[in-house]
Amino acid sequence: MIPDKILLIVLDGGADRPLMIDGREETPLSSAKTENLDILAEEGISGMMDVISPGIPPGSDTGHLSLLGYDPYKVYTGRGPIEAAGAGIDVKRGDVAFRCNFATLEDGKIIDRRAGRIRETEELAKAIDEEVHLDVDFIFKRSTGHRAALVFRGDGLGGDVTASDPKEDGMQIKESKALKKGSEKTAEILNDFIEQSIRVLSKHPVNEERAKKGLPRANAILTRGAGILPEIERFEERYGLKGAVVAAAGLVIGISRICRLDFVSTEGATGGTDSNVNKKVENALRSLKNHDFVLMNIKGTDEAGHDKNFAKKREFFERIDEAFERLLGLEDTVIAITADHTTSVAIGDHTGDPVPICIHGEGVRSDSINKFDEFNCAKGGLGRIRGRDLMPTLLDLTNRSKKFGA
Amino acid sequence: MIPDKILLIVLDGGADRPLMIDGREETPLSSAKTENLDILAEEGISGMMDVISPGIPPGSDTGHLSLLGYDPYKVYTGRGPIEAAGAGIDVKRGDVAFRCNFATLEDGKIIDRRAGRIRETEELAKAIDEEVHLDVDFIFKRSTGHRAALVFRGDGLGGDVTASDPKEDGMQIKESKALKKGSEKTAEILNDFIEQSIRVLSKHPVNEERAKKGLPRANAILTRGAGILPEIERFEERYGLKGAVVAAAGLVIGISRICRLDFVSTEGATGGTDSNVNKKVENALRSLKNHDFVLMNIKGTDEAGHDKNFAKKREFFERIDEAFERLLGLEDTVIAITADHTTSVAIGDHTGDPVPICIHGEGVRSDSINKFDEFNCAKGGLGRIRGRDLMPTLLDLTNRSKKFGA
Repeated sequence: MIPDKILLIVLDGGADRPLMIDGREETPLSSAKTENLDILAEEGISGMMDVISPGIPPGSDTGHLSLLGYDPYKVYTGRGPIEAAGAGIDVKRGDVAFRCNFATLEDGKIIDRRAGRIRETEELAKAIDEEVHLDVDFIFKRSTGHRAALVFRGDGLGGDVTASDPKEDGMQIKESKALKKGSEKTAEILNDFIEQSIRVLSKHPVNEERAKKGLPRANAILTRGAGILPEIERFEERYGLKGAVVAAAGLVIGISRICRLDFVSTEGATGGTDSNVNKKVENALRSLKNHDFVLMNIKGTDEAGHDKNFAKKREFFERIDEAFERLLGLEDTVIAITADHTTSVAIGDHTGDPVPICIHGEGVRSDSINKFDEFNCAKGGLGRIRGRDLMPTLLDLTNRSKKFGA
Repeated sequence: MIPDKILLIVLDGGADRPLMIDGREETPLSSAKTENLDILAEEGISGMMDVISPGIPPGSDTGHLSLLGYDPYKVYTGRGPIEAAGAGIDVKRGDVAFRCNFATLEDGKIIDRRAGRIRETEELAKAIDEEVHLDVDFIFKRSTGHRAALVFRGDGLGGDVTASDPKEDGMQIKESKALKKGSEKTAEILNDFIEQSIRVLSKHPVNEERAKKGLPRANAILTRGAGILPEIERFEERYGLKGAVVAAAGLVIGISRICRLDFVSTEGATGGTDSNVNKKVENALRSLKNHDFVLMNIKGTDEAGHDKNFAKKREFFERIDEAFERLLGLEDTVIAITADHTTSVAIGDHTGDPVPICIHGEGVRSDSINKFDEFNCAKGGLGRIRGRDLMPTLLDLTNRSKKFGA
């Protein structure tokens, strides 16, 4: 039977560069015992994928856009709009969005950019929303911890303004300036927002309470990552697929929202190596019942890479693999397993190496690869493809591609 | 340790098409004993590369531009600017440049396009420089043998004019004509230059001497390969790398100069199969001490290909391989070994087949390839990449790539 559903599994930053382990070149993935992944590789077709293009290290945001078939060079305008969407703001085309921090201001200087990693920002955010008045509509929303997002909506706004965040403690808040003609109004309103916020926050009971307890007050808002959301075609319109995202990482949730995919939250999913992968897989399989397409992102692999922790990354792969047992024998579904980028444990950051990919399901031309890792997939039948080739391939395997010509 | 330096080795025209040798399909490279190249392949990752794109035979000039990450379709405007730069003229953006020959004119016809392969052109070039007067600034410079280069510098000059070189003996010098609107002034000045040059050269003592000795006089200048130099970003600005080129071939030297790479000359390097390859390797390794990037071109392989000489090409590979012993164990360096194009000994010219490539250094995902040739590299872990992907890949392996996104 020709499969009808698509399950795209992104092992975030899952690919790696080799290190010498017991006299052999190994990556966390190649050295992990991954029985189920290997069965999927054996039954499927494998290859390597440049998520953007060879040598270019994707971010998780641009990487996921690319995997979803969007050109990140056209639709990515910085982290602000993605973070704002991830925080739950319904960001619209033309909106200018910023990443924000609650911070501690004292004697005109920022003494703690994270306001003692404050968590109880709900009342503070509400006060800003009610008491700040600007020349444009704005939405301010708290996110996790000391983080928040800000959106300006109105005519004549540009997205090219400098950050007000000084990026280090002990400095004054920076006056935002337009980097390009057409963004002057944005800079002006942003500076007004920051000034008014300080007034609103400084006198707020939450901060008076914090001061009493000797905690840093959250009496200023810092902004960075300004960007204007461009036109982004809805995923469903683009592909005719009802799609969902199962993820915990803010950036991935943000991407899913700006592409208008349904976000499905998972209890116990943390975005770290302590995440409840079983629940996530369960959730993804459940979401497939009422969606044509599900993207499941597992973030812990990336975390372990940034931590430069080879063993942690390898062990997490083994935990992922256990959860993948329930993918075996999944019917009516094309499964693609890949990564959004390489995160090198040697470097502790993303690199531009291609990532392994395996596509599994009825109709794929299976090859001789029987181990899912960077070395074996490089010999696979898919060859070396690009991120933007993935969605057309998956649409084609689910009999949804359109013939070009006659 | 993450490597910091890049050594790009171009075996010019080194790739080939197979011939039947002792009942087996072999290329000069596959049949050569290349112990050291094979060690590098075994330790590194191999693949095939379309220097421009599949089926397009690159010139050495466009091939090297592509390997250096420039789009030859944007920056290559003909051989004139490259030859002029190779001859040592500081060609600037907007300059119109020509390849020139000293030739022998008799009774209004060119009887020897190379003036008896004259070598002593210094005085003649000086006379042209001093006694020709044009409506624009010009630079005329002798090159090797009967060759020279000419540059016009000024406003209102186009680069699209026909050659004055009739391309065969027994013909008149052609009047140069504009091929496009905007190049009329160039054609007019070029015709003036050619006329004045004949007057200056005809009466020159060097030619009177030659006539006495029965040698063909060098009493005319032929021009071809007109082109206007476009804006070309300096290599160092483009990549943040201090780069050098170790080469003997004029075109490669020209490319290095228009990209503003340091040119390092090598004693005994001839551009032929008699070249001192050992000295070149020594020179490349020395240049790596005060550069981040070194391109070493070895030209003899191409010469043997153009000569349709299988054995000569194979033997030269063996000589190259001996010199490469000192590349083994090179630390802190990513080495890429490849070719700028295929030169088929069967055809005696460039073809559009992809070329083998091997990348060696800490951090590369080594594959199972242990022989550097067209057949084995086609099974390698790099898959099939393009020339333009090479520099991003090498920058990434030396931890210089910039993440796109977050």
